[in-house]
Amino acid sequence: MKIVHTADWHLGRILNGKSLLEDQSYILEQFIEAMRKEQPDVIVVAGDLYDTSYPNKNAIQLLEHTIDVLNLEMNIPLILISGNHDSKERLNYGAKWFEKSNMYIRTSLNDMQNPISIGDVDFYTLPFATINEMQYYFDDEEIETHQQALAHALKKMNEVIDEHRINMFIGHLTVQGGIRSDSERPLTIGTVESVEEKVFQQFDRVLLGHLHHPFSIDSNFINYSGSILQYSFSEVDQPKGYRIIEINENDIKDKFIPLKPLRQLEVIEGDYEDAIQEKLKVKNKENYMHFKLKHMSHVNDPMMHLKQIYPNTLALTNQTFEFNTSMYHENIEIQKLDDGTIIDNFYQSITDEQLTTNQKQKIEYVMRAMLEGGSN
Amino acid sequence: MKIVHTADWHLGRILNGKSLLEDQSYILEQFIEAMRKEQPDVIVVAGDLYDTSYPNKNAIQLLEHTIDVLNLEMNIPLILISGNHDSKERLNYGAKWFEKSNMYIRTSLNDMQNPISIGDVDFYTLPFATINEMQYYFDDEEIETHQQALAHALKKMNEVIDEHRINMFIGHLTVQGGIRSDSERPLTIGTVESVEEKVFQQFDRVLLGHLHHPFSIDSNFINYSGSILQYSFSEVDQPKGYRIIEINENDIKDKFIPLKPLRQLEVIEGDYEDAIQEKLKVKNKENYMHFKLKHMSHVNDPMMHLKQIYPNTLALTNQTFEFNTSMYHENIEIQKLDDGTIIDNFYQSITDEQLTTNQKQKIEYVMRAMLEGGSN
Repeated sequence: MKIVHTADWHLGRILNGKSLLEDQSYILEQFIEAMRKEQPDVIVVAGDLYDTSYPNKNAIQLLEHTIDVLNLEMNIPLILISGNHDSKERLNYGAKWFEKSNMYIRTSLNDMQNPISIGDVDFYTLPFATINEMQYYFDDEEIETHQQALAHALKKMNEVIDEHRINMFIGHLTVQGGIRSDSERPLTIGTVESVEEKVFQQFDRVLLGHLHHPFSIDSNFINYSGSILQYSFSEVDQPKGYRIIEINENDIKDKFIPLKPLRQLEVIEGDYEDAIQEKLKVKNKENYMHFKLKHMSHVNDPMMHLKQIYPNTLALTNQTFEFNTSMYHENIEIQKLDDGTIIDNFYQSITDEQLTTNQKQKIEYVMRAMLEGGSN
Repeated sequence: MKIVHTADWHLGRILNGKSLLEDQSYILEQFIEAMRKEQPDVIVVAGDLYDTSYPNKNAIQLLEHTIDVLNLEMNIPLILISGNHDSKERLNYGAKWFEKSNMYIRTSLNDMQNPISIGDVDFYTLPFATINEMQYYFDDEEIETHQQALAHALKKMNEVIDEHRINMFIGHLTVQGGIRSDSERPLTIGTVESVEEKVFQQFDRVLLGHLHHPFSIDSNFINYSGSILQYSFSEVDQPKGYRIIEINENDIKDKFIPLKPLRQLEVIEGDYEDAIQEKLKVKNKENYMHFKLKHMSHVNDPMMHLKQIYPNTLALTNQTFEFNTSMYHENIEIQKLDDGTIIDNFYQSITDEQLTTNQKQKIEYVMRAMLEGGSN
């Protein structure tokens, strides 16, 4: 029995104004080709198929094309659950017809006691739900954290679980200690969103979505597949791909298989002139770039100049390293500095120039007038 | 063989700020119950299932529920085409899976030579397409009217049509001479949108959507089913329902079956005081009302007062009948009137009051100053 675990496709995602649809289409073609070779018994997509609850028509068509090839053409059963980015109603549309072709779309809490059986394995699904939805579903207003909500759901699953089968949990949530990225929208505001690893102990394997790093958590039975692409500059250098879980008798093994994207994300730090003269090391000039550069305050429209060399530059930060690297120390010491020095440092960091004596005097004059005015 | 023909559901429609979803849900329940009795061999929905290309989740769920009951629960084959209000991509989503359950969603011109065969009947589908889409599809920029585009499509259909079968055309378009309503968004701007009846002669029956009146056209083989509800105040008093086409040997008969809606639309004309005192005849106080009233200029927030009695009042027009009924004649004569009389009439129609002598003099003074100023 071979299970492929993927999640967080985020179709339709726009990063810094740039649609990633071409990259998503490319990586899903890689995924489809990989599936042709793997010939898995089932593919699990653990939530966040779309990036938004109102996906555009191109994103919808990309999802439809992908599941069409995988499910109808290649006859692979699919299990999809909704994540916190998905609209339940939109993702679930047509589910009853899809199910006739062994494509299972699970967006409702109502199915938590209704596992999907494929071969020797029962798949229990818990699509993303807000605390409010959980309170409503369990008719229990005392549920205040995801941990409590999950405990209720797992108790329900325990009522029906068959210990003679191999049992897998599919969910979209944060396990304590997981590595976070910037592109994972928080699941909740005002309460701890992570749940404890130990609560899943009745399951042989836990296949999760939400965290984008494929090695987000160090566990021998819980895995995040990670996202299929790097979706924020905090995910630079993270491998992206899918995970295979192979079951032989009662031996379960998994491995992560990386996929090669059309473009990666890169963060490039250095001097503006070095960037323009291509002296800074980049992996690929076509990658999506976030430049963090110094000594560029004299340049008119540096972004335009950078894009002429690195066409997919998506972000540019003006950075003065000398100042920034010492900032951590200075932050602590800043209250000890006098106002003029603070302003002088700030001016240097923004313009790469020092204040003239004349400017310093004028600032001192204005500051004194303000402070004395304030004490009256 | 029994065919049910319906169209123009416009799910998600909002009329004067009021969502008609409750009415749509009600009428589709009536339709479902009628289908339980009719037990047709196929149901044809000739376009405009949704009112907008971005239907909200409630509209999506209503469509899904309706086709679920009709197709999966009652096992009735369905043929759906897209109209000018539908998003092709959204309506088409999942079509390959649906087709396995005999639900045919046709949104593409590519299928015009690919009829759907049910029993003795071949159904040829022509979803709505813009002139541009037709030009692109036929690679012919000389297509400039819907008539020309349709001629091309019918020629294509003629290449494959089997005259030994009963052939039906399903489309979403305007046939010349059809009765129009306000809620049918024009198919095109800047060119004649209607097509001639005679071009359809190779078909035994033509089942159309777009025009909302079920008797839009006087033909013995072309029919509009009309919309399932009154969708604008220009459709007041129009019957709404579905049409049955019954085929016995080569005898084809049709009849229109009305459905009873939750609320109808009414236009009520009269005096404001009579409306408030419930002296004006209305069919049902719960209906969606458009009041056209006179003598209400002295009333503060007349809409509020009307809604206390007629809670579903959606429109209110201030109307002075004496003025309006004579307007048609006066429009022709208006150039013969002097400026003062025109302004006096206008003031009366708006305020229900006459200008005072003092006001008349001031207007005369201003007019003279303007006109003389203009001639300098």
